[in-house]
Amino acid sequence: MHTIAETDADRLTRMLGADMVLTGPDTAPYCRDWFGDAQGAALAVLRPRDTAQVQDCVRAAAALDLGIVPQGGNTGLVLGAMPDSGQVVLSLERMTRIRALDADNFSAVVEAGTILHDLKQAAAARGLFFPLTLGAQGSCRIGGNVSTNAGGVNVLRYGMTRELVLGLEVVLPDGRVLDLLSGLRKDNRGIDLKQLFIGAEGTLGIITAVAVKLTPAPDRVATALVALPRLEDAITLYRRARRECCDLMSAFEFMPPLAFTLAREARPDLTLPMADTHPAYALIEISGSGLVDIDDLMARFLEGVFADGLALDGVVAQSQAQAAALWAVREGMNEGQARRGRHLRSDVSVPLSRLAEFVAEVEAAVTAQLPGCTCVSYGHVGDGNVHLNVLPDHALGPDSVDDQIARAKGILHQVLDRFGGSISAEHGIGRLKKVDFEARLPAPQRALLEAIKQAIDPGRIMNPGCQFDPVAG
Amino acid sequence: MHTIAETDADRLTRMLGADMVLTGPDTAPYCRDWFGDAQGAALAVLRPRDTAQVQDCVRAAAALDLGIVPQGGNTGLVLGAMPDSGQVVLSLERMTRIRALDADNFSAVVEAGTILHDLKQAAAARGLFFPLTLGAQGSCRIGGNVSTNAGGVNVLRYGMTRELVLGLEVVLPDGRVLDLLSGLRKDNRGIDLKQLFIGAEGTLGIITAVAVKLTPAPDRVATALVALPRLEDAITLYRRARRECCDLMSAFEFMPPLAFTLAREARPDLTLPMADTHPAYALIEISGSGLVDIDDLMARFLEGVFADGLALDGVVAQSQAQAAALWAVREGMNEGQARRGRHLRSDVSVPLSRLAEFVAEVEAAVTAQLPGCTCVSYGHVGDGNVHLNVLPDHALGPDSVDDQIARAKGILHQVLDRFGGSISAEHGIGRLKKVDFEARLPAPQRALLEAIKQAIDPGRIMNPGCQFDPVAG
Repeated sequence: MHTIAETDADRLTRMLGADMVLTGPDTAPYCRDWFGDAQGAALAVLRPRDTAQVQDCVRAAAALDLGIVPQGGNTGLVLGAMPDSGQVVLSLERMTRIRALDADNFSAVVEAGTILHDLKQAAAARGLFFPLTLGAQGSCRIGGNVSTNAGGVNVLRYGMTRELVLGLEVVLPDGRVLDLLSGLRKDNRGIDLKQLFIGAEGTLGIITAVAVKLTPAPDRVATALVALPRLEDAITLYRRARRECCDLMSAFEFMPPLAFTLAREARPDLTLPMADTHPAYALIEISGSGLVDIDDLMARFLEGVFADGLALDGVVAQSQAQAAALWAVREGMNEGQARRGRHLRSDVSVPLSRLAEFVAEVEAAVTAQLPGCTCVSYGHVGDGNVHLNVLPDHALGPDSVDDQIARAKGILHQVLDRFGGSISAEHGIGRLKKVDFEARLPAPQRALLEAIKQAIDPGRIMNPGCQFDPVAG
Repeated sequence: MHTIAETDADRLTRMLGADMVLTGPDTAPYCRDWFGDAQGAALAVLRPRDTAQVQDCVRAAAALDLGIVPQGGNTGLVLGAMPDSGQVVLSLERMTRIRALDADNFSAVVEAGTILHDLKQAAAARGLFFPLTLGAQGSCRIGGNVSTNAGGVNVLRYGMTRELVLGLEVVLPDGRVLDLLSGLRKDNRGIDLKQLFIGAEGTLGIITAVAVKLTPAPDRVATALVALPRLEDAITLYRRARRECCDLMSAFEFMPPLAFTLAREARPDLTLPMADTHPAYALIEISGSGLVDIDDLMARFLEGVFADGLALDGVVAQSQAQAAALWAVREGMNEGQARRGRHLRSDVSVPLSRLAEFVAEVEAAVTAQLPGCTCVSYGHVGDGNVHLNVLPDHALGPDSVDDQIARAKGILHQVLDRFGGSISAEHGIGRLKKVDFEARLPAPQRALLEAIKQAIDPGRIMNPGCQFDPVAG
């Protein structure tokens, strides 16, 4: 008779019960990234149903000295929730309760596994609005949104996720619960501990519930697409729109000449709203509730813009369907890039005042040094955030594609560093950008991050390998 | 011949130079609080002229093991910058440069000693607006505003100071400079270290410069005073105003029946805008720029309010002078309270949905248990923030006044704790609220605060005695 040694996976199952622990092939779906580009592995996946069970999971993993990778919808784009084979995933997917929705306080308390779309729907049912708006909103979970401090198209009006958070409940690496779930809209009692966990990507603790701000639902939305002579003109237009539209803009996206072509490659049936030969496009959304006539505001704004000769062409959506068609160009452009195969995706920011200059410099350098490559620059003008992507020439073969992507990234970062920009405007660091992040981390910042990590997670069990590698404590 | 032993003050003068160090009677103005209620003492006052000199000061104080009390305008209301006789004040008052104002990026970088009013003026000169609006804005300094995460009347539209900060420069307790001065509007590189120093009241480091967000100047402002049957109606009106005015409200203050009486006691010449016998008043400001007709918006909003019978009376300012006269009631009410002698001042918050109930409960309990006392409750409705003040019966003599204030505070806190409220909605903790703060601090929060303090300021030299007393490390 053989004695089979108990594995760590067996031990977790014994300690936490079979209902809570997935092992073997069942772990595979939790170890793939959103793009399908990366595949990890996990020792086990833990799926607690409430905060007390999260505490149990943390204590069990700590007892076995296993790294814990917290995971929400796993839709992040920087491998923040990607485990390695010696780690356990702690999925919040079973914690989806809306604990409270206080319409009269414009707030809600939801568990971390709540899907963003569900939170938005619950708010809408009470005439309210949760502003975070992302492509992944049907799959991403609010705990992940908070852990990554997610951005999206509405940041210019409502801020990053950080600005939408009123409170947090966090399970700490020692298994204790930090209850910072106050739904108070104004609370200034000293150091604001919750801020540490927003954007920490699970490296300091596990967010189990979130108190969020809600706003009145913007029941009127006006959407327009404007063609412009240059990217610079989009920035000029943005500044003018902020002032003239009284900060009621909820989105201002710029798109390059290739936008329509890429969108049609992905969606051949797409009706083009205007000629596809203009040098730059801006997609503008103004929204509001109540007594302000949003359609009239958009009409008068554009009237002035055309009277002053700033725009080449323009279309205002006359219905929700038409508005959706304008956004379809933006979304189709993304899908079209994916269809062209592997490429450099980036998520950088520079001061708005230097955005056009920055994009021109990078595109010129890429074109000069990598003549077969195509630049696709688009993004959130108001935030100085550009997704400056580079599509390699795939005819040259896969090795060349890798080389072109690496060289394009080098060119981009060189210019970015000169402009004092950020390598991650909205996506976070995760594992994908760790090396580039650490390479740019000044010594005092690094020392402070190390000290905080040591103070909160001395056992280094929270999401090891994510964001930065602390020197052994 | 006598040898006179060198004191720490002498040593500081020798190390830093006479230009930088005040000692003896010259330190007195830095040791008095804003109200004149409290008087401290300091071993010396250090007045650096730039960041490098702040580093020198920190290193000198650390070498002598002296606690450092960073000080801006010293207008905080909770004794956050009040030294004791063994400590040195580090005043930022000489660091007042506006290092950069990038109108095209809607941002500025200013030194910590810049007076808030000067920053607002510099922004205005470029057609921009720095939203922080406080009674003390002619004296308070931006570094102090950030260190205390100051609130003010515009929070409902623009957020607390935290939400106006793009970046910080901080001198750490070890003398190193943490340069987080990015003017990027969107930058999501992991844990956001600057958040730790916002609201820390100088207990973790010294803020030496701040990058701030600016917005388009709201060149149209509509101001109205509305009389209402009850405080509850003010809250109903606020909710309606948020929706109908499309989040363009910049202030919504409520005032009690006694407001006019108190204002007239302080400013006898004040013209009353309406009868002084209404049960509640709301002061409403809507503001914006560009194409939205703000006056028309206010007119249509109030038209609906009166048509629905929600208000008893209303006045809309027809000029800037009239608007100033409406605000004068609000300011005069504060001055009137001061004239009635020492009283309980509070700065609490509860969920907006329970604000009216909370105020009613406290006022009823105070009236029942302290029949000679008068409650004056006013504040920022939108934030659930009420300054629920209690004026004692001074006829009963000073000992009784102390007793009444202490008992009123006990009643207030008892109800507040039951409502899950905050003892400091906007003023911070400082030294004044330390005991009340520590008494309500759950063990995991306390442990985390201690760990962070130990990690960043192991020598305990930063503002000892402020916020909480860490267990000796």
